[in-house]
Amino acid sequence: MRMVDLIEKKAAGEALSSSEIQYMITGYVNDSIPDYQMAAMMMAIRQRGMDGRETADLTLAMMHSGDVMNLDDLPGIKVDKHSTGGVADTTTLILAPLTAACGAMVAKMSGRGLGHTGGTLDKLESIPGVCVEQPMDYFKKVVRDQGICVIGQSGNLVPADKKMYALRDVTATVKSIPLIASSIMSKKLAAGADAIVLDVKTGSGAFMETEEEAHALADLMTQIGTHLNRKVSALVTDMNQPLGNAVGNALEVREAVLALSGEIPLTAPLMDVCFRLGSEMLILSNLAKDREEARSMLQSALNSGAGLKKLRQLITALGGDERYIDPVAIEELCSTKKQVDVPAIADGTIASMDTEKIGTAAQVLGAGRATKSDIIDPAVGLIMKKRLQDPVVKGEPLATLYINDDKNEAAAIRLLQEAMVIQ
Amino acid sequence: MRMVDLIEKKAAGEALSSSEIQYMITGYVNDSIPDYQMAAMMMAIRQRGMDGRETADLTLAMMHSGDVMNLDDLPGIKVDKHSTGGVADTTTLILAPLTAACGAMVAKMSGRGLGHTGGTLDKLESIPGVCVEQPMDYFKKVVRDQGICVIGQSGNLVPADKKMYALRDVTATVKSIPLIASSIMSKKLAAGADAIVLDVKTGSGAFMETEEEAHALADLMTQIGTHLNRKVSALVTDMNQPLGNAVGNALEVREAVLALSGEIPLTAPLMDVCFRLGSEMLILSNLAKDREEARSMLQSALNSGAGLKKLRQLITALGGDERYIDPVAIEELCSTKKQVDVPAIADGTIASMDTEKIGTAAQVLGAGRATKSDIIDPAVGLIMKKRLQDPVVKGEPLATLYINDDKNEAAAIRLLQEAMVIQ
Repeated sequence: MRMVDLIEKKAAGEALSSSEIQYMITGYVNDSIPDYQMAAMMMAIRQRGMDGRETADLTLAMMHSGDVMNLDDLPGIKVDKHSTGGVADTTTLILAPLTAACGAMVAKMSGRGLGHTGGTLDKLESIPGVCVEQPMDYFKKVVRDQGICVIGQSGNLVPADKKMYALRDVTATVKSIPLIASSIMSKKLAAGADAIVLDVKTGSGAFMETEEEAHALADLMTQIGTHLNRKVSALVTDMNQPLGNAVGNALEVREAVLALSGEIPLTAPLMDVCFRLGSEMLILSNLAKDREEARSMLQSALNSGAGLKKLRQLITALGGDERYIDPVAIEELCSTKKQVDVPAIADGTIASMDTEKIGTAAQVLGAGRATKSDIIDPAVGLIMKKRLQDPVVKGEPLATLYINDDKNEAAAIRLLQEAMVIQ
Repeated sequence: MRMVDLIEKKAAGEALSSSEIQYMITGYVNDSIPDYQMAAMMMAIRQRGMDGRETADLTLAMMHSGDVMNLDDLPGIKVDKHSTGGVADTTTLILAPLTAACGAMVAKMSGRGLGHTGGTLDKLESIPGVCVEQPMDYFKKVVRDQGICVIGQSGNLVPADKKMYALRDVTATVKSIPLIASSIMSKKLAAGADAIVLDVKTGSGAFMETEEEAHALADLMTQIGTHLNRKVSALVTDMNQPLGNAVGNALEVREAVLALSGEIPLTAPLMDVCFRLGSEMLILSNLAKDREEARSMLQSALNSGAGLKKLRQLITALGGDERYIDPVAIEELCSTKKQVDVPAIADGTIASMDTEKIGTAAQVLGAGRATKSDIIDPAVGLIMKKRLQDPVVKGEPLATLYINDDKNEAAAIRLLQEAMVIQ
């Protein structure tokens, strides 16, 4: 087998066989296939696509390029949830405890935020004492005992993806739905989940800018699940505005605590998405027979305070101080040097939002990283005061900034005023 | 400017600007743009194409990546001819002398054969004494004095093409019409020609397998000429069978000598192609006003023996022994240990030929190279005895092999019998 022949095949629009895909990934990871051949192949894939079977084979080959977590010694169906990345999206910290309270086994390896999107690990670390790097045995013990654990990726998971992603980033092959799907799914599968619920964001704050692309990605990831005998459910959700109101790490934990305390109406988009994704998790876990039953279970876990209790258990298991998991106590973590309202620059209605810019505004205040080595300030960020279609009067606050370092205040204000289009 | 943005632009189907193309070629030649980015770009070009203006800009940038020959101190219009490579195609050795005899200034840098196609330099070197590596000043002097010189490429011509071709070869991006067109045209233009006649072969022995592709390549190369203010004429000619009857180096020189001695009928495909291409050369050189006049000039040069005399002058100028440029004397150079007829394996008609295989048969006998370091035997090769549609009786010779080394005889016979399909 020669890589050049495989590139020719894909460039001509043909499907690659399982063994060809395996050859390509093995060779790329062991450096016998050079970057320039992989770059040509990935551009051919971007242009010609891959069908569901090919993408499943690619996912499988990538998944087996490194360590694969084995959670088989844990009872039940291990369920994971993945989002393609959003702004004010603290769903994991709400639905993981809620579903665990309903009996799900939530074994989740999570990521950090980069750029305008937040990451669950960073949010957890805003609680004093939390350590997200935990040994695998301990992770399993916590899942077994409490039905929930969330840690950082450990071991040498999917080295093929690390190498391919670095190359895609510099060869304009990031925007390829089969490559995105296999990247996400190989990592989720290597992390050991039996069932995966995917939240594919679409809109101005999402990686997939059109609904069509988002549905194509969701469909392809579901097909991968079918091919690989995993339970996969993918929902497309809106990211044309921040999902919740809080953007920032402690601020988002506070929003999760408020949600689990019943202080956010179920009609709010954040709660709606949590209930939709959480229902899928319960159904894939064979804990609910349909959405109606699942919603009612989640509702009970919320009303009884069982969800909030699970979040406290998670924080304690990670070494954190559970006293902060309280609507009042958590205020302390959100205290910054100053809070500044961003005034509307005109009368009218919020016609559209550039959600990515809103995420970037929080990032420049210190809530996120521009590069991997940047240090996060857990307290800073912003609270949205307006949603799409809301009427607004000139001078009225669009959002409140939580600031510790004055020097980026003006930039954040400008970003928000640009992001929120009043008509 | 960032290469990744240029790749994205081309991958999305947009045209690159002149300055973007210049940036890309300069960066690739000076190693600031890595192979993997160029590989992704070339695959994007293969998939998305390039328009005439882009291809002209690419040609120009490649042409100026190294030395550019300046033939301006020579009088008149310097004309060159290029073929995309064929089998039994000794047109250069016929039409270059004929057009020079008509007053054209034929300043030609030629190439060597590789794989199943022959190369003019190898053919010239079958004449004892010929040296195709000559200093530029001497080359110009010969063109000035005699209107014809053919030498090997000298200097650092188009280093961009050398680097790009090596990469294309291993990334399945050879088959891209804009990349082929810019590769050919950049070398021809760097060699200093004012006017270029292109022979784009199509069929079973050609690089362009379909007529459609051949016409697209011919059109694009003509467009490049228009954009760059050069006179370019491109013809598409048939390569579904060997053009002449001789495949091999001395054998092809003999065929050229026979042609220039008037011993090949003008209706033979070889002569027809020589007259068509030669007419274009005379017209682009402003020596003939139309094809009719051009053909009549070429006919006169043939009848008077002026063409054969020009070939003798060329051989002498290159240090060769001109006595061999004679239909009888040249037989000596075609003398091999043995000559073997390849018998037809059935009665019928020659329905089709795999011309590439016929070229390969001559190559395995020693007439061509499989790799650049192989050494050629100038005398060996084959003479075709049948053309397409010819009737054939089982056992009748399809071709005669000229053999010095027995060990590849069986393979060559098998290749020829496979290549010539009798129905």
